[in-house]
Amino acid sequence: MKIVASFIELDTGEGISLHDLMPEIKQAVAKSGINNGFVTATSQHTTTAIAINENEERLLEDVKAFLTRLVPPGDRYLHNDIALRDCPEDEPENAHSHLAAMLLGSSEVIALADGELVLGQYQSVMLYELDGPRRRKVSVQVYGEE
Amino acid sequence: MKIVASFIELDTGEGISLHDLMPEIKQAVAKSGINNGFVTATSQHTTTAIAINENEERLLEDVKAFLTRLVPPGDRYLHNDIALRDCPEDEPENAHSHLAAMLLGSSEVIALADGELVLGQYQSVMLYELDGPRRRKVSVQVYGEE
Amino acid sequence: MKIVASFIELDTGEGISLHDLMPEIKQAVAKSGINNGFVTATSQHTTTAIAINENEERLLEDVKAFLTRLVPPGDRYLHNDIALRDCPEDEPENAHSHLAAMLLGSSEVIALADGELVLGQYQSVMLYELDGPRRRKVSVQVYGEE
Repeated sequence: MKIVASFIELDTGEGISLHDLMPEIKQAVAKSGINNGFVTATSQHTTTAIAINENEERLLEDVKAFLTRLVPPGDRYLHNDIALRDCPEDEPENAHSHLAAMLLGSSEVIALADGELVLGQYQSVMLYELDGPRRRKVSVQVYGEE
Repeated sequence: MKIVASFIELDTGEGISLHDLMPEIKQAVAKSGINNGFVTATSQHTTTAIAINENEERLLEDVKAFLTRLVPPGDRYLHNDIALRDCPEDEPENAHSHLAAMLLGSSEVIALADGELVLGQYQSVMLYELDGPRRRKVSVQVYGEE
Repeated sequence: MKIVASFIELDTGEGISLHDLMPEIKQAVAKSGINNGFVTATSQHTTTAIAINENEERLLEDVKAFLTRLVPPGDRYLHNDIALRDCPEDEPENAHSHLAAMLLGSSEVIALADGELVLGQYQSVMLYELDGPRRRKVSVQVYGEE
């Protein structure tokens, strides 16, 4: 089995933003020379997530509104008492971002057959930024045979 | 490493419905001849999800009621303004289905040891239909050694 | 490809509790002798979950409070009518635990490069106990090459 490791690095938007990773993942697959196997995408941060969704402009706005309602940034969270924690003073107050990331999940695994990702036509693997803007990394590994 | 790719195809129920995929996944494992390795199950749609749960009749009703409360179909979603989107007029108003699928996740990975899926006795890999009824597909790949 | 299968067994806390699995996962990787490949962690129960989060004491309290609000144990659930189900009389009333587990997900997959898990500095793979205390098992498999 051949294993080809790579990272996607990107700059994200303010607060919650969604980033379609399909162009970079397809490029990683093409570069790997692997035709049959699978791909893993794993977020490298506790306030970002990986999930699959349709990259439709208005839906992405619904996602932001929904996550903001589901885990309100203004609620009371113990993690946001920065002064009571053993951490730098300028640590962000981002408990809501951790909670949303935890629900969305950090990894997805997608089969690869005849050089193509086995996904439906509307499925995009996306990075969910939940505490942006920041520079972020996603681990993308391609496993399999030529 | 041997890789055996397959799809499960099924017709789902109205609105939200859960479908236990264990018989089909076990059959895919048996047919593959692979005894040690792992299995991936990945939904092929943005309004279905894959998650593991107990296949208990009354619990499945609780799941439907819970998801309907968590992401109410009647809420206001921008994605449901079909006329404002660049898409066919008969596109379904299903933003709530996308949001539920995003939370549930699109894939699970399960180890395979001595020809058996490494799962607890009450764990069933299930397809969550969130915008049915429709004809749906799940990618099931078995990887490993005989 | 080498495959090394193992289980982590642990005793969990009352109600909801989070358990950092990194020491045991790192030990499983070290013992496997595998340097490049990937690791899967899969919960073996329908009322526990696997997710990645920061192991910060106050955040873990926020997680408990948030999950309790999101899926209130005191709500009405059909699964909790034990007398109406075909099951032992002492079955726990834990529908809320199943619903939380379903949202959090049962597995994560993490790449392994040069003997190290490919994760950010604050990322810990955790077992989420949602109906403790109990004795629990997590399947950890390491796949790859020396």
